[in-house]
Amino acid sequence: MAEVRALQYLQHGGPEVLQIEALRIREPGFGEVLIDIAAAGVNRADCLQRKGYYPAPPGAPERALGLEFAGKVRAVGPGVQDFAPGARVMGICPGGGMAEAIVANERELMPVPTVLSLEEAAAIPEVFLTVFDAIYAQAKLQPSEILLVHAIGSGIGTAALQLGHAFGARVAGTTRSASKITRAKEAGLDLGIDTSEGGFAAALKDEFGRGADVILDTIGAKYISENLSAIQTKGRIVTIGLLGGVKGELNLGKLLAKRVSWTGSVLRARKLEERASLVQSFRKIALPLFQDGTLRPTIERVMPMSEAQRAHEMLEANEAYGKLVLSW
Amino acid sequence: MAEVRALQYLQHGGPEVLQIEALRIREPGFGEVLIDIAAAGVNRADCLQRKGYYPAPPGAPERALGLEFAGKVRAVGPGVQDFAPGARVMGICPGGGMAEAIVANERELMPVPTVLSLEEAAAIPEVFLTVFDAIYAQAKLQPSEILLVHAIGSGIGTAALQLGHAFGARVAGTTRSASKITRAKEAGLDLGIDTSEGGFAAALKDEFGRGADVILDTIGAKYISENLSAIQTKGRIVTIGLLGGVKGELNLGKLLAKRVSWTGSVLRARKLEERASLVQSFRKIALPLFQDGTLRPTIERVMPMSEAQRAHEMLEANEAYGKLVLSW
Repeated sequence: MAEVRALQYLQHGGPEVLQIEALRIREPGFGEVLIDIAAAGVNRADCLQRKGYYPAPPGAPERALGLEFAGKVRAVGPGVQDFAPGARVMGICPGGGMAEAIVANERELMPVPTVLSLEEAAAIPEVFLTVFDAIYAQAKLQPSEILLVHAIGSGIGTAALQLGHAFGARVAGTTRSASKITRAKEAGLDLGIDTSEGGFAAALKDEFGRGADVILDTIGAKYISENLSAIQTKGRIVTIGLLGGVKGELNLGKLLAKRVSWTGSVLRARKLEERASLVQSFRKIALPLFQDGTLRPTIERVMPMSEAQRAHEMLEANEAYGKLVLSW
Repeated sequence: MAEVRALQYLQHGGPEVLQIEALRIREPGFGEVLIDIAAAGVNRADCLQRKGYYPAPPGAPERALGLEFAGKVRAVGPGVQDFAPGARVMGICPGGGMAEAIVANERELMPVPTVLSLEEAAAIPEVFLTVFDAIYAQAKLQPSEILLVHAIGSGIGTAALQLGHAFGARVAGTTRSASKITRAKEAGLDLGIDTSEGGFAAALKDEFGRGADVILDTIGAKYISENLSAIQTKGRIVTIGLLGGVKGELNLGKLLAKRVSWTGSVLRARKLEERASLVQSFRKIALPLFQDGTLRPTIERVMPMSEAQRAHEMLEANEAYGKLVLSW
């Protein structure tokens, strides 16, 4: 057992409840690695957990935030094969990613591409693994298909734009911010849709003459009906966030007539074997694309861990294009 | 071009609009087979089409009912490899299955197992292909999983009970009829749930200590909420009918938390290549199970084609356990 500093909340509430406090972490066991964390990406789930809407799963630290991290291996437990002390690694975790150190199984870790700093790497795991799992493993996005991404300027959105293109799809994205559309178009977005000005189903039809084959949805209830209008026959909708509400009316007649599959997905509740399986698949298929520059995390700002309150405020005000990273 | 007798409706309405009238059918072209139809199964979709709620897709006869048939090959067009005149065949079709003859591509046809009569065979294609596609091809039902089937006493339900068991699953079924539960239990149903007496989510929990891995849903709106309560984490819901309404409230929070996939499916609108692909997969995996007696169509009654009005009345009054078949 060792004690490290970690970003935690003492009770549920606004960003002001965030504090850096001591956290106990265990020694690395069989197959496990102890990592000195350099930086961690901020996620909307952190804000939800801080507010009390997204409790830590069993086994995760109750009040220590952080679902992803990048750092250097300090020590390895018995049986570890892939990583040695000093190796640069990144990964997802069910909590405690914003501590100075963490213990993880080596099968959930990835090497950091040599072209990236640890601060850049810290912005990769959560959004790129989530998007990879949703559009590749689950929705089976195909070359030449159309991928529609809601909230294109978010961390998830900026990762989906890059992964969608890497898999050969055309990518359309929605946002209510004209400046985010400008930035996404600079990053290659095929169709930017400002939803403060009109509907996305009509915009897709105007641009492509058809709907989307895959919709990556972080909005939820607000777009249930329009998603079913905007989706193509045999299309796949994957909902991974509920920023626009939880409950809404579903027209099953459209789901049938278009033969749509609608899947809900979360990473955090998954057990070790599923997280490790996803990471290993990502290592093989997506990680090489960071090395050659096809993929690159989109980072709004890297801030010191002591400014975590400000980072939460920025995220909740939708001020960031892409990711916010906190570094020690 | 030849003229044959065929069950048709002259205008939309109740069972009384059904008439046997002349229908023109084409000569078999390349890869096509001309079949003398012996019998055809009745489906709820026939009733919907008769009422005007389910128009024939492009290329299908507009007013000639019938989505499945069994009969003998009378003639083959050029290039046909699998069937010769005299062969007993069965298949699905987008309409005109209740005519005296039909032309179909040989790739959408199956040989009738030698242990079955043509009247028995006529009850197979629509429900067994639909269920096979839904629970095997789409929901990927696994051995030891729990399959929940709504309307267990319907043609779809009786086929799902057999296919679910053939694939190694435990099968639970809902109905509002105590007598249908008795008959389904005689056929091996693991858990019969009378929904006039209580909820199915609670009944599953009581019996198995858990929810269903796969739900085959012919009800739709009425069960949206309870399906999400009754489904297991990573469960798959396939909706293929809307007897309980089209629109209802969806709780996406449950869809996410349980990582559920909800798919809508219909066979009829599919193009040749998809129908043929499904039939060929079924031929290989499910058809041998009829030959050895593992699968057997459940038939309430075989009636002459002239009693089609009565058959529609029985189906709409939920009087049949399993299929109704009309024979020439």
